[in-house]
Amino acid sequence: MRGYGIKAINVPGWVEKEKPAAGPLDAVLRPVLISPCTSDLHSMHGGAGPKEKDRIMGHEAVGEIVEVGALVREFKVGETVAVPCTTPDWLAPGVQGRFNAHDRSPLGSFKFLSQKDGVMAEFFHVNQADANLARIPEGVAPEAALMTVDMMSTGFYGAENADIAYGDTVAVIGIGPVGLMTVAGAELRGAGRIIVIGTRPNCVKAAREYGATDVVSYKNGDLADQVLDLTGGRGADSVIIAGGGAETFGKAVRMCKAMGTISNVNYFDAADTLGMPAPAWGLGMADKTIRGGFCPGGRSRIEKLLDVIKYGRCDPARLITHVFEGFEKIEDATRLMEEKPADLIKPMVRIRW
Amino acid sequence: MRGYGIKAINVPGWVEKEKPAAGPLDAVLRPVLISPCTSDLHSMHGGAGPKEKDRIMGHEAVGEIVEVGALVREFKVGETVAVPCTTPDWLAPGVQGRFNAHDRSPLGSFKFLSQKDGVMAEFFHVNQADANLARIPEGVAPEAALMTVDMMSTGFYGAENADIAYGDTVAVIGIGPVGLMTVAGAELRGAGRIIVIGTRPNCVKAAREYGATDVVSYKNGDLADQVLDLTGGRGADSVIIAGGGAETFGKAVRMCKAMGTISNVNYFDAADTLGMPAPAWGLGMADKTIRGGFCPGGRSRIEKLLDVIKYGRCDPARLITHVFEGFEKIEDATRLMEEKPADLIKPMVRIRW
Amino acid sequence: MRGYGIKAINVPGWVEKEKPAAGPLDAVLRPVLISPCTSDLHSMHGGAGPKEKDRIMGHEAVGEIVEVGALVREFKVGETVAVPCTTPDWLAPGVQGRFNAHDRSPLGSFKFLSQKDGVMAEFFHVNQADANLARIPEGVAPEAALMTVDMMSTGFYGAENADIAYGDTVAVIGIGPVGLMTVAGAELRGAGRIIVIGTRPNCVKAAREYGATDVVSYKNGDLADQVLDLTGGRGADSVIIAGGGAETFGKAVRMCKAMGTISNVNYFDAADTLGMPAPAWGLGMADKTIRGGFCPGGRSRIEKLLDVIKYGRCDPARLITHVFEGFEKIEDATRLMEEKPADLIKPMVRIRW
Amino acid sequence: MRGYGIKAINVPGWVEKEKPAAGPLDAVLRPVLISPCTSDLHSMHGGAGPKEKDRIMGHEAVGEIVEVGALVREFKVGETVAVPCTTPDWLAPGVQGRFNAHDRSPLGSFKFLSQKDGVMAEFFHVNQADANLARIPEGVAPEAALMTVDMMSTGFYGAENADIAYGDTVAVIGIGPVGLMTVAGAELRGAGRIIVIGTRPNCVKAAREYGATDVVSYKNGDLADQVLDLTGGRGADSVIIAGGGAETFGKAVRMCKAMGTISNVNYFDAADTLGMPAPAWGLGMADKTIRGGFCPGGRSRIEKLLDVIKYGRCDPARLITHVFEGFEKIEDATRLMEEKPADLIKPMVRIRW
Repeated sequence: MRGYGIKAINVPGWVEKEKPAAGPLDAVLRPVLISPCTSDLHSMHGGAGPKEKDRIMGHEAVGEIVEVGALVREFKVGETVAVPCTTPDWLAPGVQGRFNAHDRSPLGSFKFLSQKDGVMAEFFHVNQADANLARIPEGVAPEAALMTVDMMSTGFYGAENADIAYGDTVAVIGIGPVGLMTVAGAELRGAGRIIVIGTRPNCVKAAREYGATDVVSYKNGDLADQVLDLTGGRGADSVIIAGGGAETFGKAVRMCKAMGTISNVNYFDAADTLGMPAPAWGLGMADKTIRGGFCPGGRSRIEKLLDVIKYGRCDPARLITHVFEGFEKIEDATRLMEEKPADLIKPMVRIRW
Repeated sequence: MRGYGIKAINVPGWVEKEKPAAGPLDAVLRPVLISPCTSDLHSMHGGAGPKEKDRIMGHEAVGEIVEVGALVREFKVGETVAVPCTTPDWLAPGVQGRFNAHDRSPLGSFKFLSQKDGVMAEFFHVNQADANLARIPEGVAPEAALMTVDMMSTGFYGAENADIAYGDTVAVIGIGPVGLMTVAGAELRGAGRIIVIGTRPNCVKAAREYGATDVVSYKNGDLADQVLDLTGGRGADSVIIAGGGAETFGKAVRMCKAMGTISNVNYFDAADTLGMPAPAWGLGMADKTIRGGFCPGGRSRIEKLLDVIKYGRCDPARLITHVFEGFEKIEDATRLMEEKPADLIKPMVRIRW
Repeated sequence: MRGYGIKAINVPGWVEKEKPAAGPLDAVLRPVLISPCTSDLHSMHGGAGPKEKDRIMGHEAVGEIVEVGALVREFKVGETVAVPCTTPDWLAPGVQGRFNAHDRSPLGSFKFLSQKDGVMAEFFHVNQADANLARIPEGVAPEAALMTVDMMSTGFYGAENADIAYGDTVAVIGIGPVGLMTVAGAELRGAGRIIVIGTRPNCVKAAREYGATDVVSYKNGDLADQVLDLTGGRGADSVIIAGGGAETFGKAVRMCKAMGTISNVNYFDAADTLGMPAPAWGLGMADKTIRGGFCPGGRSRIEKLLDVIKYGRCDPARLITHVFEGFEKIEDATRLMEEKPADLIKPMVRIRW
Repeated sequence: MRGYGIKAINVPGWVEKEKPAAGPLDAVLRPVLISPCTSDLHSMHGGAGPKEKDRIMGHEAVGEIVEVGALVREFKVGETVAVPCTTPDWLAPGVQGRFNAHDRSPLGSFKFLSQKDGVMAEFFHVNQADANLARIPEGVAPEAALMTVDMMSTGFYGAENADIAYGDTVAVIGIGPVGLMTVAGAELRGAGRIIVIGTRPNCVKAAREYGATDVVSYKNGDLADQVLDLTGGRGADSVIIAGGGAETFGKAVRMCKAMGTISNVNYFDAADTLGMPAPAWGLGMADKTIRGGFCPGGRSRIEKLLDVIKYGRCDPARLITHVFEGFEKIEDATRLMEEKPADLIKPMVRIRW
């Protein structure tokens, strides 16, 4: 079968691979909606990720089930489902606590792209289908469902980890698609003021629609100083990092008030050293909590997010700015992510088999 | 000075009392907005509450400061502020943990009506003004501010105690003003489906505006059965009790799914025995958590709720259906609460001195 | 194969059943240590539990693996392991949140006895072996390991759910083996004073060894009154119910202070109505939290408890007061649980094949 | 009156100051037991802290009340009480959430030394006596009480912030008196294995007595590597930093497993930049939580810790290795902290007036 992947570092392209087969607990699907993600590109350019040759990219999909293993009991061939980007091995020790993204190793529940071929293929494999596929409820558009599997799940996780209480002031650094979902997620945890940090006009517009009340740009000075100014010197109750380089870490700690929380859902580079001056952290004693997590996976989480959409609390389909038709267009959609035209938030490819 | 209070059990009326004086940490205020509450009436009819003769009623007010004690440093005479219905003694042991409503005894932080004269007077006293008055930010109408001090604080507390995660199904029992704020609060914690239990058409309409997606009425059968039916037999993830008699308790446990949470902000009667059949609680082992709490107080909480309003997340002023003008109208407004006309949610009295 | 089970309500006895076979994810074990539990007897006498004829009893075992399914990768035939009494289906939705005891229905992760034959057999079956068997570390006696799988896991769960902070006063109702482990668990969460409620002298002695500081007996008056007296009228910070009838529920709420927690690990009877007078719960507003949960399962939990033993923090083998040798003695050991001689805490059967 | 303080940077010495007077909510005490602390010396050498001339040092004391303000109602002249090192202004906004150490600014609840004269004086002042003094229960030696006010409260806070579950492996970096109390606190949260990092033989001995099971020394290689080796490459579930320089931060993150928690109670230097290589933190996505907090204050906390001692769970008096008699010996005791003889853990001065 064909797939679009990483032929070599910095060389994306079409590859020919074996069609996957379902183990007894698994499923094989055909993608019907796909969205490329910056982490696909990040891996393609040699960042953290697979080192294997000809690895197919893609981890955001809605798909149609074409094969189920003998032990699968809740899904059938022919169903169209949302596919969480994180698909834990639920028989592993790492899921028996509060988290599920680190099944046998850190980030080990992220299988697509990192450990096996992704969804930009004629067929793709999902482990433990009963626990890792999500049924799309009536009333939810497949396009919206597509946005739950990574963007909404990751963005909302940033908000969940931020200890938001009613009326809190929340700063969100980065307003790409994950950052925008963080804004929506912060509003749905009860945030009052939401200060976003970003500059692209289309993203700023979307941020305001998703609940942002203030916008800060690096063009107007130091980001932490600006947030401190806006908050009378106290800082934000919560700061969520959804984009930015290594220097963002210290700035986030600095713009957070004592007793506040910094929540990271940004992918730093393996070469980064994250540094903060001790005073920003109260010499280690200001009770500023720092979390950094990976998008949780599994069926229940995505089905809950689908209910957020179904009951009208948030529409993540607003993120989709460019729609392509046909399997071959995966290439164009992915290239668009590299080119980042001014009006891009997320591209989507629709495939009719 | 004059005040409207409890002359004797079941006898409301105007009483003459000494004008209060501020201790060194305290303030004396004139009410400018007042709203009567069912708990005023409950006490008047001999429910839990003060047994003292001629106790002035009322614990929901926006007021103007007319006197501050020598040690008050953050508020000045002439300011108009929101007055939390719960005003803890912050020097007591009961506020040094996670809660602040039980300063020296259960519910001890509720001073108005229970421990001293309330706000339906020419002047009223607030203990520890720096910690117990709330500044109303620019952009928030005093009417909206009035609704934070008990209705929104209590209703939101019901939601805070309900362990709501994104997309959860939440059932709210009772859609009086507290129940309506619970609905709004549940939406702002990320609830998906919100099933309300109530019948009054005006309240049902308001509930839908505040975020309810389904309405259940006792007229159509057992409440728990109906919620179980709506949820495919599983029950709601969270059930919030914001109204109802003793039998509500067991029903709430029954309509809650295993691993869910029941959160109570309803005032049961001292005569009630709250009972549930053991199977509803999984014979004690279904991991259904039950909480029941009193509206937290203090300045920070109310100022946070005022920010919820300021940044456009919720407008509690929608609760106010009837407005009276003038101090003398406190009597009419309170009587309206007894009569409960079909179009009533909350009455308010505006007083221009 | 033979097993000891429920021939009919109130009729225990030996039964002949098919030897179980391992599915692809499962294992079959021979028991080497078994302990009967009161819930075996409870079921035998017609309480909540299986209604199937000839159901083999027993859910506390250390066993030797004699067969593993084709997909099992972490355990091998010949290993001796601890077998959690709760063995969730990790592919079910109910384990994707904070709990794991309710996989597809309330208490659904409890398989032995309730859903299939238990461990009092020549062979028994364990679902999802990789996730549901626990390796016994060097330095931990098998007898101690046997006590982790239900007694210690359940008792410690009672303490985990009780929100114990350093120095808290904890009341433990019931000092059978689960209650004793609750005492030990409360000490290991930082409790100061531990008041136990019980009368049997051998259990009182063990309770003191596990950390109890005060003993209250129903023979000396109302239990709640006594705990209130001991605590200057305030009540305990946490109350853990590890035994008792329906009336215990209300008493537990009454002896708990405002802002405290009641944690239940007791099995109430399906016929019980749990009742409390409203004032005991602050008319629903005293911020007394009530939890009631079922022993969590899975490999990680039991392996953590085994580490509690390995590093010398607690020795649950102290619970074992009577040791029987040989498979046939399961009958005597079980009968001993019925007879409850004065010196009994837990019996154990050792089987050498 | 006389006191021992900071005459100028690096110049400790006796100073003459006005005797403090109690405001209406406050108390004045005479010290009867004092212990110098490294943070006194740190300030004296020009670290973070007061810049005022002739500031009296000392913030660990048991004292006798000699004056109470007019509004103090729970304490009387003549009582001997424990004095929390952190004495929040309970009327400030910063205590109305989950924390109390940052009343009006970060670390603002730490008054002694930082904002006013400390306890190494003939008399010292305590703000809000009712909320900030702690009654010593019968059965607790004053020496043990002295160790609660900072060492035990800070050390236990390190453990509280570390998310310890039963059986967890906990690494404690630094085994001075705070680190030793962290070890004791970790055991009393249910830790299994406790790996301490330190070298001084007397502290290693005490660490083992307080619950340490393994000892790691920087002399044997990189600290993180050693902890990773001991834990089969996975890292500790929790890492608590109770000592060390700036480089400790990154090492702590590295020796912590994915999904684990790093808890800091160490005072970093204002000149430090705390850095970690991104991979140690899973590129920001390993769900490793980082907390760093200041010793909480107030009466309830210290009275709870006194109960930990009273009921025999921990004896912090074991920390006291050197006892001096008489007010004048404050100088020697403080100098001993500088000299750090091999057998020192904590010195104490007993003063009989």
